[in-house]
Amino acid sequence: MPAIQDVLDDIVQSVGGRKERGRVAHYIPELATVDPSQFGIAVALSDGSLFEAGDSRVPFSIQSISKVFTLALALGRSGTGLWKRVGREPSGAAFDSIAQLESDKGLPRNPFINSGAIVVTDIVLAGHSPRECLGEILRFVHHLSGDESIHINDRVARSETENGFRNVATANYLRSHGNLLHEVELTLGVYFHQCAIEMSCHQLALAGRFLANGGRLNPSGPRIIVGQSARQINSLMLACGHYNGSGEFAFNVGLPGKSGVGGGIIAVVPGVASIAVWSPGLNSYGNSRLGTVAMERLAKAMDWSIFG
Amino acid sequence: MPAIQDVLDDIVQSVGGRKERGRVAHYIPELATVDPSQFGIAVALSDGSLFEAGDSRVPFSIQSISKVFTLALALGRSGTGLWKRVGREPSGAAFDSIAQLESDKGLPRNPFINSGAIVVTDIVLAGHSPRECLGEILRFVHHLSGDESIHINDRVARSETENGFRNVATANYLRSHGNLLHEVELTLGVYFHQCAIEMSCHQLALAGRFLANGGRLNPSGPRIIVGQSARQINSLMLACGHYNGSGEFAFNVGLPGKSGVGGGIIAVVPGVASIAVWSPGLNSYGNSRLGTVAMERLAKAMDWSIFG
Amino acid sequence: MPAIQDVLDDIVQSVGGRKERGRVAHYIPELATVDPSQFGIAVALSDGSLFEAGDSRVPFSIQSISKVFTLALALGRSGTGLWKRVGREPSGAAFDSIAQLESDKGLPRNPFINSGAIVVTDIVLAGHSPRECLGEILRFVHHLSGDESIHINDRVARSETENGFRNVATANYLRSHGNLLHEVELTLGVYFHQCAIEMSCHQLALAGRFLANGGRLNPSGPRIIVGQSARQINSLMLACGHYNGSGEFAFNVGLPGKSGVGGGIIAVVPGVASIAVWSPGLNSYGNSRLGTVAMERLAKAMDWSIFG
Amino acid sequence: MPAIQDVLDDIVQSVGGRKERGRVAHYIPELATVDPSQFGIAVALSDGSLFEAGDSRVPFSIQSISKVFTLALALGRSGTGLWKRVGREPSGAAFDSIAQLESDKGLPRNPFINSGAIVVTDIVLAGHSPRECLGEILRFVHHLSGDESIHINDRVARSETENGFRNVATANYLRSHGNLLHEVELTLGVYFHQCAIEMSCHQLALAGRFLANGGRLNPSGPRIIVGQSARQINSLMLACGHYNGSGEFAFNVGLPGKSGVGGGIIAVVPGVASIAVWSPGLNSYGNSRLGTVAMERLAKAMDWSIFG
Repeated sequence: MPAIQDVLDDIVQSVGGRKERGRVAHYIPELATVDPSQFGIAVALSDGSLFEAGDSRVPFSIQSISKVFTLALALGRSGTGLWKRVGREPSGAAFDSIAQLESDKGLPRNPFINSGAIVVTDIVLAGHSPRECLGEILRFVHHLSGDESIHINDRVARSETENGFRNVATANYLRSHGNLLHEVELTLGVYFHQCAIEMSCHQLALAGRFLANGGRLNPSGPRIIVGQSARQINSLMLACGHYNGSGEFAFNVGLPGKSGVGGGIIAVVPGVASIAVWSPGLNSYGNSRLGTVAMERLAKAMDWSIFG
Repeated sequence: MPAIQDVLDDIVQSVGGRKERGRVAHYIPELATVDPSQFGIAVALSDGSLFEAGDSRVPFSIQSISKVFTLALALGRSGTGLWKRVGREPSGAAFDSIAQLESDKGLPRNPFINSGAIVVTDIVLAGHSPRECLGEILRFVHHLSGDESIHINDRVARSETENGFRNVATANYLRSHGNLLHEVELTLGVYFHQCAIEMSCHQLALAGRFLANGGRLNPSGPRIIVGQSARQINSLMLACGHYNGSGEFAFNVGLPGKSGVGGGIIAVVPGVASIAVWSPGLNSYGNSRLGTVAMERLAKAMDWSIFG
Repeated sequence: MPAIQDVLDDIVQSVGGRKERGRVAHYIPELATVDPSQFGIAVALSDGSLFEAGDSRVPFSIQSISKVFTLALALGRSGTGLWKRVGREPSGAAFDSIAQLESDKGLPRNPFINSGAIVVTDIVLAGHSPRECLGEILRFVHHLSGDESIHINDRVARSETENGFRNVATANYLRSHGNLLHEVELTLGVYFHQCAIEMSCHQLALAGRFLANGGRLNPSGPRIIVGQSARQINSLMLACGHYNGSGEFAFNVGLPGKSGVGGGIIAVVPGVASIAVWSPGLNSYGNSRLGTVAMERLAKAMDWSIFG
Repeated sequence: MPAIQDVLDDIVQSVGGRKERGRVAHYIPELATVDPSQFGIAVALSDGSLFEAGDSRVPFSIQSISKVFTLALALGRSGTGLWKRVGREPSGAAFDSIAQLESDKGLPRNPFINSGAIVVTDIVLAGHSPRECLGEILRFVHHLSGDESIHINDRVARSETENGFRNVATANYLRSHGNLLHEVELTLGVYFHQCAIEMSCHQLALAGRFLANGGRLNPSGPRIIVGQSARQINSLMLACGHYNGSGEFAFNVGLPGKSGVGGGIIAVVPGVASIAVWSPGLNSYGNSRLGTVAMERLAKAMDWSIFG
């Protein structure tokens, strides 16, 4: 097996500089201003070592990657009760589809499409004010990455709030089916802000360690969540983490992962490593174009796959 | 970790005797006559040892499990060209849905729903007569399990042929989109017969070894398929192997698997084991009800999961 | 042909007293309190005579019948430009379906399903404050029925506003596709209030005359809308006026009509009569159960049908 | 009102010669060979007079217009029992959609989309051989038009049989739901041949008279079907006769009509006239492009509309 730092340097060289980079998310005006030429990657091994290359210390909007963190929080809070309000199946439809929600009578297919993530946030919000809830989410992320400098970009949150008609539609639709317990404004307020958390690849790779180490930040550390929950989150990332490109990612990369429209992707090699990559341009599924390629390269080079 | 034989014996005892067994598949009259009280399980470890319990030597109709074998054959034959005619995404719809095929203009979502499997059979059939093609499929299965006694149940095949209106509809729909190259009767003739192959858990566990061992029957044996193909088939089984219950199986069992309406399920622990279980009664997704429970028990007891 | 008053009296007797009356709309709490035993009917002939029976002078919530009046206003205002934002086809889906709106990229199928009616209201609102707009709608209805006592029930409007999550979802979805020009709150404010207009069968029969008389309140009166517009509204009522029960109504009654979940229905016999009926209980399509039966009886008795 | 012959001559002149004629149906190879420059029109008034212009005596493939004739036959045979197997609602989907059939569990939305028409043919076939059944259909058409020269084009029927994969899929799908009682080959054999009947505008205008005259060929003639059935067929043509362009046709033309992919359209002015037009090029809905324009012109010029 090659030295991991060499692999990362090579990926930055050969993948990070490609011309065809995909299109930066444009439906959130504030995200559309990001420089598409950036590219970063970082790997946190279970032995505690960390490797990185490129723009690995540049913070970016984690967007849907936040769904992994709120799911972990919600599982800790409501336990299996959560699964009465959200399914565990791949959707076979776009990440913001309302059509399926209609035929499924308000039950989102999984916690990683927008409708499901909004319900998860609604669960995390229970018994809190939106401000308290966001504080809790941030503290959780600080703890996972051991870095208290991580914060929310208010301009991005405001930009999403002002342009999130599709999410407002989704939340009201959930409410019409009784699957949203708080006022739409409150739950979406938290949701838009959690998506606007900014982290670097460095910080995300650290934050993903608990999924690689059976619920612990490192193999001998204290539990963040029970091991069974970490496995379950990994299974959901594998089957549903890349929207309608989830099967493709599993097929080509072979690792559980979760993408965000900010261009970030985290992936997990159970027992071995937590990975984060970032390149703002997206492919047709809404996942980072070069980030997906980089993940495939890295997994092949290191012979990392959960499938053999 | 407990002794595997003890675990299997315990599963036969505690799961195999349950009262709520689900309903035996009834849309194929010949399958509806199977005694629902049967239950078998078998495990083939990568070290060559084999464990079994219950009705593990009773042959049953493998039905959709055959899709794994024809996919392996087709990948060997047409390579990546296959993926121009079949997708790699979970469908989010029923195994025999035509609706999705309509919106996707004749491109099946994956090779494990009926439409996709029919296209895979169409690929395996290329350049052969149906009889030759079936001979090749049987020889492949014989080779995988090291057992030449495995055969096709003609009554079941005939029963499917006479009642397979939904599959005939699907095949004609594929043909209308140019995604079926042979006469509908020819491809479906092979398809109905491959589904009517009868195998025991013992034989299926042996036949699944090549997926657990990176494409080889045992870690030091000759290649059946390239390692990359074995991984890819495993990823497809994980994301799509249990129809609309695939996410659920991944969540609860944590292993790539493929079910058939005959009540059989195979599952793979990469690098470790190949598993087969059988109980004829089905759950609401069309997967073996007790077989699914048994898989979950076995995986938990042995701490087998690809997710950590 | 029998005397029309006899027919109406007979309908009140034989239909109006039936036990199986359907279920009163319950999704708007304020509507759920209506006494289901009420039944009224009224007919305004083109010769100026008016006939009525039962609770024909009791005001009720016209709900979706208001869509006919706002469509007439919008056609007068934006002319054919309206049809760039709303289709003219039956939907084949429920009145509040968002699924179709998703596949149709934000273009409602017709102006009588909720999404289409919201766009029509958005058009009527252009250049006005919501208060002015509602004033204009009310004045239009006053003029059509020659009765200035018609008013909006604020409790119903408030009840809809507080429980109209599905409509809020729809409006936001339209906005996400750029097919809603005002703030969601403004357009929906008008929409919820227009639905809360209260009219009796007597008043509605009078208000429908302009559709029976080629755009005029009576054959020799001044034009309300051009004759072509009256015909077009009639064609839309025929094909789309009863949601997913439109074909059924056309088949059984043979007249253009529009229903509301308040239990009212208006129908038009071109050149002959304007009809209104009311019974609060609904059938499975959301149309007045006994009202539909009464319309069929009346049409048969008077030999009124546009189909021969 | 202008003289009708002048109107027809003007339409042939101004519409029949247009450059943009749409595309001739190409999915049936034999139909694709038709000369697209042809254009004919004919009107049969209830007083017995007949007017025609252009290629009004050239026979063409009536295709889906045949669905009107088999529906009339089936209503005569099975009466209202037919409506247990076919709905009466506009579909909101394409004429050959299987998706809707799936969600509706094998019940076609109406008798004028392909699935519904196949069920109607299945009803007409009951108790007959396919040959006898086709004989009966032909005799019915001969009787309606008073012309025994009308026949089936065997080449077209064969061409449809060889390329009708979508219809074979539909019929098998219906069979899987128990909504097709004969062998697929038998019912489709009749269906493909009824579609291949060739008639001229002259003959079609005559054949449509029974729908304009309350079930009689002329106001004082003997009944072909009861008046109620004629009205009902007219209502179905209005709401469903032009597939996904039905609402548009009702809106613009204002008459019940039925189109075929051969480029023919018949329309009915209840109590007044039966109309037939033909131009082979189709619009995006699969209806004759110039034929639709011609119908609109004619209806406007003669002030014919069922909507006022």
